[in-house]
Parts: sequence; C-alpha cells; structure tokens
Amino acid sequence: MSRSLTEQDLPDLARGAAVLGTGGGGDPYVGRLLVRQAIREHGPVTVLDPDELADDALVIPTAQMGAPTVVHEKLPCGTEPIAALRALEAHLGRRAGATMPIECGGINSMIPLVVAARTGLPVVDADGMGRAFPELQMETFGVYGVPGSPMAVAGERGETTIIDTGRDNKRMEWLARGITIRLGGVAHIAEYAMSGAEVRRTAVPRTLTLALTVGRTIRQARERGADPVAALAEALRDTLYGHLRVLFRGKISDVERRTEAGFARGRAAAVSFDGRHKLELVFQNEHLVALVDGEVRCVVPDLVCVLEADQAEPITTENLRYGQRVTVVGISTPDLMRTPEALAVFGPAAFGLPHDFRPVEELR
Amino acid sequence: MSRSLTEQDLPDLARGAAVLGTGGGGDPYVGRLLVRQAIREHGPVTVLDPDELADDALVIPTAQMGAPTVVHEKLPCGTEPIAALRALEAHLGRRAGATMPIECGGINSMIPLVVAARTGLPVVDADGMGRAFPELQMETFGVYGVPGSPMAVAGERGETTIIDTGRDNKRMEWLARGITIRLGGVAHIAEYAMSGAEVRRTAVPRTLTLALTVGRTIRQARERGADPVAALAEALRDTLYGHLRVLFRGKISDVERRTEAGFARGRAAAVSFDGRHKLELVFQNEHLVALVDGEVRCVVPDLVCVLEADQAEPITTENLRYGQRVTVVGISTPDLMRTPEALAVFGPAAFGLPHDFRPVEELR
Repeated sequence: MSRSLTEQDLPDLARGAAVLGTGGGGDPYVGRLLVRQAIREHGPVTVLDPDELADDALVIPTAQMGAPTVVHEKLPCGTEPIAALRALEAHLGRRAGATMPIECGGINSMIPLVVAARTGLPVVDADGMGRAFPELQMETFGVYGVPGSPMAVAGERGETTIIDTGRDNKRMEWLARGITIRLGGVAHIAEYAMSGAEVRRTAVPRTLTLALTVGRTIRQARERGADPVAALAEALRDTLYGHLRVLFRGKISDVERRTEAGFARGRAAAVSFDGRHKLELVFQNEHLVALVDGEVRCVVPDLVCVLEADQAEPITTENLRYGQRVTVVGISTPDLMRTPEALAVFGPAAFGLPHDFRPVEELR
Repeated sequence: MSRSLTEQDLPDLARGAAVLGTGGGGDPYVGRLLVRQAIREHGPVTVLDPDELADDALVIPTAQMGAPTVVHEKLPCGTEPIAALRALEAHLGRRAGATMPIECGGINSMIPLVVAARTGLPVVDADGMGRAFPELQMETFGVYGVPGSPMAVAGERGETTIIDTGRDNKRMEWLARGITIRLGGVAHIAEYAMSGAEVRRTAVPRTLTLALTVGRTIRQARERGADPVAALAEALRDTLYGHLRVLFRGKISDVERRTEAGFARGRAAAVSFDGRHKLELVFQNEHLVALVDGEVRCVVPDLVCVLEADQAEPITTENLRYGQRVTVVGISTPDLMRTPEALAVFGPAAFGLPHDFRPVEELR
C-alpha cells in the first residue's frame, strides 16, 4: 500500500539505509539534508509498494555515482539527478511514472526521494542491490536480464551524457565511470529504465521500508536503554535479511584509503578490546569482506556493517578513523542475491577476492 | 558544382590532406585504404560545394578522435563513424542530408568519405579546422557560434554515447576525450550538426578540393622531375592558403613522444645538413610551433608541415623518426582562422605556448 514519507521519517531512514549500505552508498547526514530540503520545499513523498505498479509503468531509477571520498567534499544541490532523469526520458521519448533507488545507502536511498519530492513522481520501495555495491553492473536488475542501457549521466554544470552499450552493463559502468571521473569524481545518473513487471521480477523489494525499520529499531533501543544491535538482530529475523551475526567488537587500529580510478579503495584493521583478536576489512566504496584472525567471517554479497560501539550508528568507509570503537556485524542477504547468476556478478570473485562465498550464518 | 570522387583520386587526396593535417589528422595510408574499400563496395562519393547546400539542409560532420599513436595500432573497420552518425540522428530525431570533415588530415579528411560511400550521403567540401587540431573546441564552427553539442561518440563494439554540454565546447571535448580514453584511445564521432547556411558562415571552404590540389601538385612535380615544394608554393599562391615558406632543411636528430591524457604529445629536433642550424618542433597530435635556432618561424594556427626531403611526402608526428631527411614548410592560413575570436580558441596561448601569433609570411 502506498504511504507518505515525511521529514520526521528521515533520520531513521537515513540511518537504516547507511547500515544496509555496508559502509558505502554515501553519508547519511548529507542524504538526509538533501531530502529534508526537498520535502520542505515541495511536500512529502509518495512511496509505492512494488505490487502497486502497473505492469507497463515506466520506472527510471536515479542515483549518485562516484567515490564517497569525493562526495564528502563536493555536495550536490539536488537538481542533478533530475537532469539525468529528464535526459533519459528525452532519449527514450517517454516520461517516467516513478523513480526508484538502485542501492541502499545514506545518500543513494535518498536521491530518488529528492527526485520524487521535486518532480512529484512516486518512488518505488525496492532497489537493485539490496545493499550498496561500487559498480553499476552489480545490480539485480542486470543479473535478471534488464539492461542498464541507455543510461544518463549528469554533471553539476548541466552537462548530460547518454550511454548505450546494449546489454553489456559492465562496459556501461566502465564508460560511466570514465565520465564521472572527468566530471570531478561525482555525478548523478538515471539507468535501468524498466517496466513495473520487471521491477517485481528483478528488484530487491521493500528496502526503503526495511531501512526505516532498521533505523527506527536502533533509535528506539537507544531511547529505552537497550542494546541496539540485539534489537536489530531481533527486528531483522522476520525479514529477507534474517541473520545478523556480531563479528567483532574493538577499536580501529589502522585505515588505508586511496581514491583511485573513481573509487575509494582500501582496508581497515581493528583490535579487540582485550587485544587478543584482529579484524581486517577490505573495501571498494563498500566493505567487501571481514576477516577475524585471518578467517573469513562475512563476504560479499552478505553485508559487513561497521557500527559505532555504543549507539550502533553506522560508519561509512570514508568516515573510518583510527581509534573509533566499533561493533562489526554481518547480515545475510535475500536469496535472489545469492543465486549463481547473482554471485557471478557481485560475488567475491567479481571483486578479485580469493574467497569463496559462504553465507554469513554458516561461517564461524 | 558537385563532383564525383573515385578511387583514382585517393592517393593524391590522402597525401594532400596529410600535408594540411600538419603532422596530425591521421596516417594517410590508413585513410586511403578505408575509403578505397568503401568505394569499391559502394561506388564513388558525391562531393558538394558549400554553395550547393540548401540553407536548411542538416549537415552532420563525422571524424575519428584519439591519439595518432594509438590509431596506428588499432585500425577502424569503417562502420564506427556511421554508428556515431546514426546515434546523433536518432538523438536529434532528424536524418542528415550530408556529412562533412571536421578537419584536414590523412584519416580525418577520409572518414566522411567512408561514411558517404557507405550511406549514400554526399560529403561537403569544407571543414571546421582548415588543418588538423587536437581538440574538438578548436573548430571554426564553434568559433563562429555553432555548438558542438549534442555530439555522439561510438566505440568499436557498437557502444554509443551522446554528450550534451550546451554551448560549452571545451567541456564537450573534455568529456569526449575521457570516453575516448576509456574506449582504448580511439573513437569515432559525429558533432557540430548544423544547417547549410551555418556551413557557409562558419566552415573553412573547399578544403577537400585543396587537399586534392596539394596532393596532385606534389605527385605531378615528382613525375616531371621538378621540385615538389616549389610547385606546391606556386599552386597555393591563388588559394586561401597563399604563402608557403621553407623553414628548414635537415635531418631529424631527436624525437620525444608520449601518449598522455589521450593525446600524442612531444617534441622533435632536426639539424641542418651543414650542421649549423637547429630546428625544434613542439606537437600535440599536430605540430604547434617551429623554432629555428630558437626563433619562432611558424606557429599555430599557421601550418607547420614536415615533408620527406626528396619526394615531399608528408610525415605525421607519430611517424617521425631519427635520421629522416626533411623539408619543413610553413603555410599561411585563411583569414577566418586568424581573427581574434579564432586565435582565442586555437592560437598559441590556447596550447599554453609562450609565443604571440604572427603570420608565417611576416616571420623571418
């Protein structure tokens, strides 16, 4: 059933989206401010359940693209993703009936809400990654046969480009990344235009609702003095993301981060509070794998989430700092993200990692 | 008056275009083979004088884009510029009535002929540089108010992109160059779509005819045992390129060349046959300036042409080699390439050169 999203929902939504973003998908504070401004100017946003979409409705997802390390210094004004949407509509010769996130994340769950508030379009409660991933071919839309092309990329000066690589979504990512680099490291995009029927077939459903639940659960646990992580594990149990495992508690002891080829790449290390165990994280915008004492405890596509130890506030990869006290959790992903087709596109091997995928709930 | 261009014209045309290309614009041998193949398969090409165009005819120039050092190793198959043309037509929602070169050069005078042969379109006898320049904003079309956008870039795997930077042709170049680099260093483009009236107002006219004259003059002088350079000076006298000056005769003594940011950049040096004088050339795809014993003798936009000493065959910058015996000539450019507006876009300062522009015929 469609519902209205208001300014009061935004802190919980942004926090929850950042948890699901597994360290990427953008800073929730920035994302929240962008939507708040848009809602204050244009009123609340209508969120549509995927089941409410007409089979032939045209849905055009919108997002920000770029290295989080750059986004941090180069904030959008909010009109850029609309420029991308309009460019793609003009190219297709059709107007969108709704927009949708491509991934979960502090900014990228919010960009479609900004578009929705400013254009009056509804936003679909679903996305194409069920978390955040660094590259555009890593979307369930593409895994299950929707081409990303044609896509639009918009820059901050009103420049637009349309990319068409047919069914080759990896080549699309390669070109779009090149353009994003030339635009200064961050751009806004519209891609994977699809029908309502295709949304139902290929999207990870109800991830906006899930983000809201995650963010609200953490806040409410804090308010009543309960353990937010335990509350979150409880809240997730009956969702498509059923298993939450605490992987590590400790202090960040090292962060190595570089902005390279349009991505924020690096690794981070942590030491347990008793000094006896070590955590290693590898990231490309998002966390890809968590190793404890050299053993894999959670690996893509499952979620590695770094939370501030007391309040369980999510920490994005570009905000990791020496000395932070953290709880690192692993969260299982929905079945459609763990099929062989899905793992071929965004499993460990797709990132050049030497590990096999094993579900977080089976790793110890 | 329109004329038909046949296979027999190609060696002269390619040679002459390479002279006008001032070291850039592509290898004439490759250009010639591409057109020969297209004409053998599809028949001769119709060349239109600019005066024959209807005011409202849609003319879409086509070209190859990239570092000559890369083109050398990565030959096109001939369909890529048509993919660019078709992508731009689709974006504009109009079909082209003719194509046209954007510059003079061994490949880039020929690409529109390939397009013309394969599509049946006529090609306009004019171009947008009156020589070759390395960057897309450096076109008389843009100098005199025609925007390059929207433009199309096509890759060898059928990928296409459309770039729209409004009236900012420099930004267009920046993005197109980024895409070209991602496509492997060479791409094919369609840009500066314009009306017949705009062609007459902004293009350097009749440069295909001029290239044919240049190439034929050199060949015929060789055949009758005359000095090709003297014959060329004589043949140019009554054209828009009225002054040819011999700047230097000697042997190439050094070449420094790197493929960088999508361009072939470098410098070359030569020593006179008597060992008493030194020539220095600076190039970015094309030659930008010739200094003899430290003094500027010819600088952009005037043409610096390196010719093989005996036969006056043009040598492109990517083919410069130690020990080559060369005659280096400077050729004056048409008035519309020397206006303050034109010099602002492609004069010495636009390339970061410290020299003021002075006409080659006034330099000594």
